[in-house]
Amino acid sequence: MKTLNVDLGDRSYPIHIGAGLLGRADLIRPHIPGRQVMVVSNTTVAPLYLDRLSAALDGFDVRSVILPDGEQYKTLDTVNLIFTALLEARFNRTCTLIALGGGVVGDITGFAAASYQRGVHFIQVPTTLLSQVDSSVGGKTGVNHPLGKNMIGAFYQPRVVIADIDTLNTLPDRELAAGVAEVIKYGLINDPDFFAWLEANMDAVNAREVDALSFAIERSCADKAAVVAADEREGGVRALLNLGHTFGHAIETGLGYGAWLHGEAVGAGMVMAAHLSHELGWIGDDDLDRVERIVARGKLPNRPPRGMSKARFLELMAVDKKVLDGRLRLVLMRGLCDSVVTNEFAVAALERSLDGQIAEAIDWPSA
Amino acid sequence: MKTLNVDLGDRSYPIHIGAGLLGRADLIRPHIPGRQVMVVSNTTVAPLYLDRLSAALDGFDVRSVILPDGEQYKTLDTVNLIFTALLEARFNRTCTLIALGGGVVGDITGFAAASYQRGVHFIQVPTTLLSQVDSSVGGKTGVNHPLGKNMIGAFYQPRVVIADIDTLNTLPDRELAAGVAEVIKYGLINDPDFFAWLEANMDAVNAREVDALSFAIERSCADKAAVVAADEREGGVRALLNLGHTFGHAIETGLGYGAWLHGEAVGAGMVMAAHLSHELGWIGDDDLDRVERIVARGKLPNRPPRGMSKARFLELMAVDKKVLDGRLRLVLMRGLCDSVVTNEFAVAALERSLDGQIAEAIDWPSA
Repeated sequence: MKTLNVDLGDRSYPIHIGAGLLGRADLIRPHIPGRQVMVVSNTTVAPLYLDRLSAALDGFDVRSVILPDGEQYKTLDTVNLIFTALLEARFNRTCTLIALGGGVVGDITGFAAASYQRGVHFIQVPTTLLSQVDSSVGGKTGVNHPLGKNMIGAFYQPRVVIADIDTLNTLPDRELAAGVAEVIKYGLINDPDFFAWLEANMDAVNAREVDALSFAIERSCADKAAVVAADEREGGVRALLNLGHTFGHAIETGLGYGAWLHGEAVGAGMVMAAHLSHELGWIGDDDLDRVERIVARGKLPNRPPRGMSKARFLELMAVDKKVLDGRLRLVLMRGLCDSVVTNEFAVAALERSLDGQIAEAIDWPSA
Repeated sequence: MKTLNVDLGDRSYPIHIGAGLLGRADLIRPHIPGRQVMVVSNTTVAPLYLDRLSAALDGFDVRSVILPDGEQYKTLDTVNLIFTALLEARFNRTCTLIALGGGVVGDITGFAAASYQRGVHFIQVPTTLLSQVDSSVGGKTGVNHPLGKNMIGAFYQPRVVIADIDTLNTLPDRELAAGVAEVIKYGLINDPDFFAWLEANMDAVNAREVDALSFAIERSCADKAAVVAADEREGGVRALLNLGHTFGHAIETGLGYGAWLHGEAVGAGMVMAAHLSHELGWIGDDDLDRVERIVARGKLPNRPPRGMSKARFLELMAVDKKVLDGRLRLVLMRGLCDSVVTNEFAVAALERSLDGQIAEAIDWPSA
C-alpha cells in the first residue's frame, strides 16, 4: 500500500492506494468521529462492494442510499434524496458520509456532505480509475444544472481517500481507458518523467497490473495535489488541470452527453490542444506525434468526432466557464510536458488547427 | 455611520450601520470585483428599495431575482430559481450576489452564492432589525428541508454588510419587536452593560430613534462577532448564541411555523431558560424579574403559548439539532448576563420549570 498526504493545512488528508483496502477497518475507522455513517453508492457499485465496505464498519450505525447510476442523476434533486435519507435516519452533524462509487457518486456525495447541516464529515472510496486519479484530490464537489455542467457545488475536502485497486477489476475496458486519459494528462501538464514512464508501461496499465496501476494512480494524485496545494480555490495555476477539457467539453456537449465518455473527450481534447500548440510553433512534429500515440495506446480517440463543424466548436468553447471577460483562455503546450494557461494565441491559428483536426474526424468507438 | 470590522482572517469584512446607506455607491462598489451583479430580493422589499440600491450600482450589469416573501419559500427549489437566473444571464464565477431583504432572503442568497460555480461574491443588505443584528454576522446560510429547519446550507461570509437604519421605517411593529428579541439576547449572553443600556433605552428603540437603533445594532453585531471569531464553525462557545432558541424552536414547531414569529418564540424561550436557571438556583428572584420585564418591554411574549403540554415540549426539544449523543444541552444562566452551554441539570428540574411556565401560558398577540 502507498499513502500520499494531501497538504492543505488543517484540511490535509491521506490517500491510501493499493489492493485489498476496502475491507481494511484500520484505514477508515480513525476518520469517523461519531457513530452515524451513511454510505452513498449506486445500483452498479453497491451490489459489488457495499457488503465488503460495511463489514469494515461493524459497530457503527451504518445506513446506505443507493442512487441510480448515471451522469443524468447528478442533480440537485438527487442531493435532496440524500438529505431526506439523513433526516429520516435523524443523523446529526457528527455523522459521516462515505462515497462508494465513481466520480458522479463522489461529486454528489461530497456536495451533500458540504451542505448537510452546513458540513459533516466526508470520506471518498472511489471505485473507478477516473475517480481514483481525479476526484480524490482537489475537493471539487457538485452537481449539474439543466443549463450547465458542474454549475452548483462546493470546494470540500474528504477526511481520507481509499483507492482500492481491486475495484478496478470489475471496470469495463472503455471506462478504464477514460481514466487513463486523466493519467496521461498529468504527464503532459508538467511531468516529463511520468510521461516517459507511461510510454514504457502503457501495456501493463491496460492489462491492469497492480503495480503499474498503483504507481500511475499515486503519481497522478501527487501531481494533482501539488497543483491544488498551490491554488486550492482555482484562482490561477489550477486551471492547468483543464488541459484537454475545453475542447473535451465542446465534444461532450456537441455530441450530447454520454455519447463519448468524459475521458474519451479529454483524450481527443489533449490532442487538439497539442495540435494548436504545434500550429503556433510551440511544440515540434515529434512532440505532437508522441501525444497522438500515447493517447491512442491508452485506447482513446485521438481525433475529434465526425459531425462537429468548426463553427460548432467555436460556439461551444466560447461558453465554457473558463472564459474570463470574453477572451478565450486555453491550456496549451509551450513544450512537451510543459503546459501553460494562456489567451495569447491568434483566433486564426485556432481556426486553422480546428480545420486540420476536423478533416481527420473519426467515429468512436471505432468499428 | 458606524463601521464594525468582523475579524476572520482572509474572510474579514466590514459592517456599515447608519441612516441613508442604501444609496451610498462608495460603500458597496469596492466590494464588487467583476461587472455582473445579481440582486436577490422579495416581493415586499423590492418595490420599496430595489431602485435605490440599483442607482448605487450604475455602470454594472445589474439583474434581479424577486422571490415570493415568506419562510415557506426558504427551500432548495428557490435556490435553484436563483441558479437558473444566473445561468440564463450567463453570469460567470466573477459575479456578485446581493441579498436585499430580511433573514430569509439573506439565508437563501448566501447559500446560492456559496454554491454557484462553487462560490461567488456575496453582499448582505439586510432590511429588518432581526437580519441586521443576527444574519449580518456569522456566515450561516441555508434553507429548510421538509423534515427540518436550516438543515441544508453552508458557512459563507459576505464581502460587506450594509445595514441601513432607514429601511426599518417600513418594518411592521411586530417584526421590529422580533428583532429586539435577538438584541436582548446579546445582553443576556455576556454583556451586562448592554443589558443595563437596554433597560434604560428600550422606549427609544421601540420609537425607532436612529441613534438608539444604531447603537443597539452595532453592539449586538460586535457581541456576536466576538463569539463567532472565537468559534467560526460552531464547535463550542458559538452555541451560546442559541440562548432561548431550543425552547423557541419547540414553540415554533409546536404551534406550526409562522404562528409566532421566530423572535417572539425566542423572547419566550429566553424567559424559559431564565426560569430553569432560577429553578436550579443559579439566578435570583430579582434577576428573573429583570429578564421577564425586559422581554415584555420589548413587546414580546414572556410566557409560552397556551396549548403546548410539557410532554410536547420535551419531545420537540429532544430532536433539536443541538442534542449531542442523546443528552440535552441548553444555554442557561449561571448568573444574569453570564450564560453557559450545559447539560448539567436534572431532567426533573426542567420538568418542574416547564410545569410552572405552562401554568402561566398566554395567547399572542394578546387580545
